[in-house]
Amino acid sequence: MATFFVSSTNNDFVILEENDSKHAIKVLRLKNDDLVDIIDGCGTLINGAIVDAHPKKAKVKILKKEKNKKPILLGLAFCPTKNNDRNDWVIEKATEIGVTDFHPIYSQNSERRKFNEDRMRKITISAIKQSGNLWLPKIHPLISFNSFLEQQHIYNHKLMAHCKNGTKSELKKMTNNNVSQIIIIGPEGDFTSEEIENAEKYGFKMISLGINRLRTETACISAISIMKLG
Amino acid sequence: MATFFVSSTNNDFVILEENDSKHAIKVLRLKNDDLVDIIDGCGTLINGAIVDAHPKKAKVKILKKEKNKKPILLGLAFCPTKNNDRNDWVIEKATEIGVTDFHPIYSQNSERRKFNEDRMRKITISAIKQSGNLWLPKIHPLISFNSFLEQQHIYNHKLMAHCKNGTKSELKKMTNNNVSQIIIIGPEGDFTSEEIENAEKYGFKMISLGINRLRTETACISAISIMKLG
Repeated sequence: MATFFVSSTNNDFVILEENDSKHAIKVLRLKNDDLVDIIDGCGTLINGAIVDAHPKKAKVKILKKEKNKKPILLGLAFCPTKNNDRNDWVIEKATEIGVTDFHPIYSQNSERRKFNEDRMRKITISAIKQSGNLWLPKIHPLISFNSFLEQQHIYNHKLMAHCKNGTKSELKKMTNNNVSQIIIIGPEGDFTSEEIENAEKYGFKMISLGINRLRTETACISAISIMKLG
Repeated sequence: MATFFVSSTNNDFVILEENDSKHAIKVLRLKNDDLVDIIDGCGTLINGAIVDAHPKKAKVKILKKEKNKKPILLGLAFCPTKNNDRNDWVIEKATEIGVTDFHPIYSQNSERRKFNEDRMRKITISAIKQSGNLWLPKIHPLISFNSFLEQQHIYNHKLMAHCKNGTKSELKKMTNNNVSQIIIIGPEGDFTSEEIENAEKYGFKMISLGINRLRTETACISAISIMKLG
């Protein structure tokens, strides 16, 4: 069944956004009485029926509405790469897997200091519709690595991956998906030794992702997979 | 240090391929006596020095050569998706993480029945150079799902992921990176019930990748990450 995203589900009816209405009525050729799923990214799953098959503002009557429990926090702090396609991949894949909070950061060796939150929000909406994830991840504003460390974090497990030498534990031994977790993944040029020391002061534990040097985006998806499912 | 791939390292010298020579001499501006790393994708790691900085056939003298132990087999059998970018991504990421054998397959619901092995081989070469993985994965020819099942497989752990209902175990409980393992990931339209039954007859255990519906390529990378590192 087709799934659509709306930002509010407080009434007995919802109106689909213009793009979604066009997709539902013109592309999928849905008609009155056809059933659709509606999500709001805040845990709500609605089963509804089209009552006005308008190609710009299709109206759906809510038949059944369930509210699901909020998942345990799973944060991903990463330095966006120069190549925007690779950032899109991180956001799409990590949303499918179940990241709840994206923390884009820039560090000393970051090559990108801009991050288009609107574009990324669209990718997360598309990924939750596709994956059946009922929770839209929060995309925090891009900030510096040091400001990020200084923020009060509510995560129980705070992890960080880098490729420099030093004491590290295997990620699988440090992860526990019954508590809130966050991992920081470094930029293409890695973190500096000062940044790593600073993170340790703020309680981050250093972890290893094996002997191969993973690209930033690969490290993000590998780490998140292990933290969520491993 | 720059890393280059050559197909044979049997002599005291190696000649870089034309593209690599151009990259080394024209782009990186390497000169005689500059040091480079050379890999052959079969576990050899060479430290060498340029002795003829020729822009089309640069010659490197071997200074040190080490042969590394073959890794435990980690196979990924997957149905390539319609969108080739997503297939490229699977090959690149899974090579970085450490897949040793790719088994492209087509099943009843596969939308793609062609697979460009040459293109994929180039992606694996680029990924091992970048990641420090000394072993070039083997890309097996595309075959049908049923032919794949009928082949004699040398993997100890044989797993399969699908989205249909049925008895499944969590992947993390079924994986063991001390023995050879393979996982089959389904096409966008999933496997048919007959295909799942058939795989069970051939000893494949059904596993789950959580409650979200992961795209084919996300499932590939998540599963391989957990099997290698989780």
